Amino acid sequence: MKKVRIGVIGIGNMGTAHALSLYHQEIPGAEIAAVADVREERLAWAENNLNGVQLFNNEDDFFQSDGIDAIIIAVPHGAHPRLAAKAFERGLHVLCEKPAGIHTKQVKEMNQKAIESNCVFSMMFNQRTSPLYQKVRDLVRSGELGEVKRINWIITNWYRSQSYYDSGGWRATWEGEGGGVLINQSPHQLDLWQWITGMMPSRIRAFCYFGKNRDIEVEDEVTAFAEYENGATGVFITSTGEAPGTNRLEITGERGKIVVEDSRLTFWRLRVPEPEFNKQFTGGFGEPECWKCEVPVTGKETGHHGILKNFSSAVLHGEPLLAPGEEGLNSLTLSNAMQLSAWTDNWVELPFDGDLYLHHLQENINKSTVNKKDINLTLNVDNTH
Amino acid sequence: MKKVRIGVIGIGNMGTAHALSLYHQEIPGAEIAAVADVREERLAWAENNLNGVQLFNNEDDFFQSDGIDAIIIAVPHGAHPRLAAKAFERGLHVLCEKPAGIHTKQVKEMNQKAIESNCVFSMMFNQRTSPLYQKVRDLVRSGELGEVKRINWIITNWYRSQSYYDSGGWRATWEGEGGGVLINQSPHQLDLWQWITGMMPSRIRAFCYFGKNRDIEVEDEVTAFAEYENGATGVFITSTGEAPGTNRLEITGERGKIVVEDSRLTFWRLRVPEPEFNKQFTGGFGEPECWKCEVPVTGKETGHHGILKNFSSAVLHGEPLLAPGEEGLNSLTLSNAMQLSAWTDNWVELPFDGDLYLHHLQENINKSTVNKKDINLTLNVDNTH
Repeated sequence: MKKVRIGVIGIGNMGTAHALSLYHQEIPGAEIAAVADVREERLAWAENNLNGVQLFNNEDDFFQSDGIDAIIIAVPHGAHPRLAAKAFERGLHVLCEKPAGIHTKQVKEMNQKAIESNCVFSMMFNQRTSPLYQKVRDLVRSGELGEVKRINWIITNWYRSQSYYDSGGWRATWEGEGGGVLINQSPHQLDLWQWITGMMPSRIRAFCYFGKNRDIEVEDEVTAFAEYENGATGVFITSTGEAPGTNRLEITGERGKIVVEDSRLTFWRLRVPEPEFNKQFTGGFGEPECWKCEVPVTGKETGHHGILKNFSSAVLHGEPLLAPGEEGLNSLTLSNAMQLSAWTDNWVELPFDGDLYLHHLQENINKSTVNKKDINLTLNVDNTH
Repeated sequence: MKKVRIGVIGIGNMGTAHALSLYHQEIPGAEIAAVADVREERLAWAENNLNGVQLFNNEDDFFQSDGIDAIIIAVPHGAHPRLAAKAFERGLHVLCEKPAGIHTKQVKEMNQKAIESNCVFSMMFNQRTSPLYQKVRDLVRSGELGEVKRINWIITNWYRSQSYYDSGGWRATWEGEGGGVLINQSPHQLDLWQWITGMMPSRIRAFCYFGKNRDIEVEDEVTAFAEYENGATGVFITSTGEAPGTNRLEITGERGKIVVEDSRLTFWRLRVPEPEFNKQFTGGFGEPECWKCEVPVTGKETGHHGILKNFSSAVLHGEPLLAPGEEGLNSLTLSNAMQLSAWTDNWVELPFDGDLYLHHLQENINKSTVNKKDINLTLNVDNTH
């Protein structure tokens, strides 16, 4: 194989962006071979803009095409696991848009199929390409920060107007997305949250507000509290209704504190670890000597292109994946647990009962009175993630 | 009355500082006339350092002295309401150290006595003298920020070593303090939290950890989630076990966002209020124009001196109080509610049942196995609040 021949299924906002990157040969080692969409107007767009690319108006023909080695899944979330499983069965490699799916049960099944298939499976967690978050991960994983004690992430800069929600019939509905800000906007941070520390909470207590700021049925504001096995705690706050939002990550450890805000990393490093200071200090009031450290962050966030390149190199040369597909389960587990905690107004121990989650989700789908017209506007995503 | 003659009851850490301020004539309109303490070594100190000041080794003689017009209460928290009530009955004005007391029931009774007495009653909420927080309050109360939507306060810069806790027999015990970081370190922020916005939560769900970082029985780490009647939410995070700590207050409103960190105030002002933008915007992705505003903050935080001066001017000339004593109930209500929520592992609706709180507190006192020696070191408080 000289070039990975990629089929893109779903050419809405993100699928279109990926299709164009491939079409314009921006991804070495990969080329676009086919696109599929059920919407005639999107296929008409493809006919005009993706010269020489095979077009399919249904998934069965798409999967039977023998001109593709791999697929990018960019359809609404609920269909991700089913389409990925279908691809694995046909020996096709898969790059899946986030989130991995809508509920953990289907995602676990997908992961099982991936393992059995021996295909390359990657998630589009493009924020893992950020040198900033890679450096934070480095400081935590290398032990520079010491044992993690608390993680606070205020990630409220996901402002979305009502017109955004009105642009797609599936948007912000239980049936179409299975949630709101947790499933659509915040999966990146939910991914980084556990990717940076390598820690999943042992239990979660969350407060979700549904249609609080917008005329939607799903959650648009969330505050979640997390407990970890080592005694660490965490807070995750997200919203699509605030302007201007905040993106501030603070991780406290036994050797100091890391703060990421305004795309800057500050490492407040204790000269001696806090527990050691505490053991030796006899002065009443007083605290460990602390240095404000400027840690160099080099390189550029390569984003979607970075993940696309990594995926094609993995297929061609066995390059290790930056975002292995199976890890999509983690952020979805966090997101589902937060909703489940709000629905049950109680703690959720991890791992939780996937059937119980599904039961509640189905109840919400059944109770839904949303009747959006069949709207599907394709939005410009240049400035989103 | 030319000068308010003040008696200080309790000359431990804070009482000593106040006694010295008065003794060195740093408070116009006030003078120190008496001090009382049950500890002989503190009276010996007073004899050597407060020349000409009446000394009492018991509260009855202290209260019967006719040489005082007002008292400062600086004994352990639990005795504040009882001593204040006694003072009001004798027509003495009261300046009370924070917190108002240990539980709301006793504080409500104290407040009732204050009202009946017509005496001046002030709380030592010295952080209300901060021009920074006064300006934040101004921006919120004047409507510049619009309706408040969320309040996050990370106030974890209350680092306390084990040696601090070991310095006083009453410290960090259920019987001696009725709590830990909530009752001793954070009352200032719990006061400012509601003083700035004028809003008390309608319910609270909190997560308190008891003796997590130190060998103490009370809470030393707290994360609290608050809901307000207007739909606003809030998070309050505090700890004495982290270094370096954080003090970051973020208030989001319909017209923007205020952030206070590193003693700097930033007002992110929306050109048009967010709800208006949302109504008119049709572009899908996009958010309101926002200006980063540098709002001038002038003046100096006058701290304890400021409150002492304000108190004596209130007694002498009827000057309005910056921190009316009755308002001590508010921060204590928040603090009690957070503990009660942790004890019951459930929501606490405000106002809550004071007897229920007391029942739980008493249970903790009864179960206590702490047996500190009768230690009472007087610490230097120059750098604390």
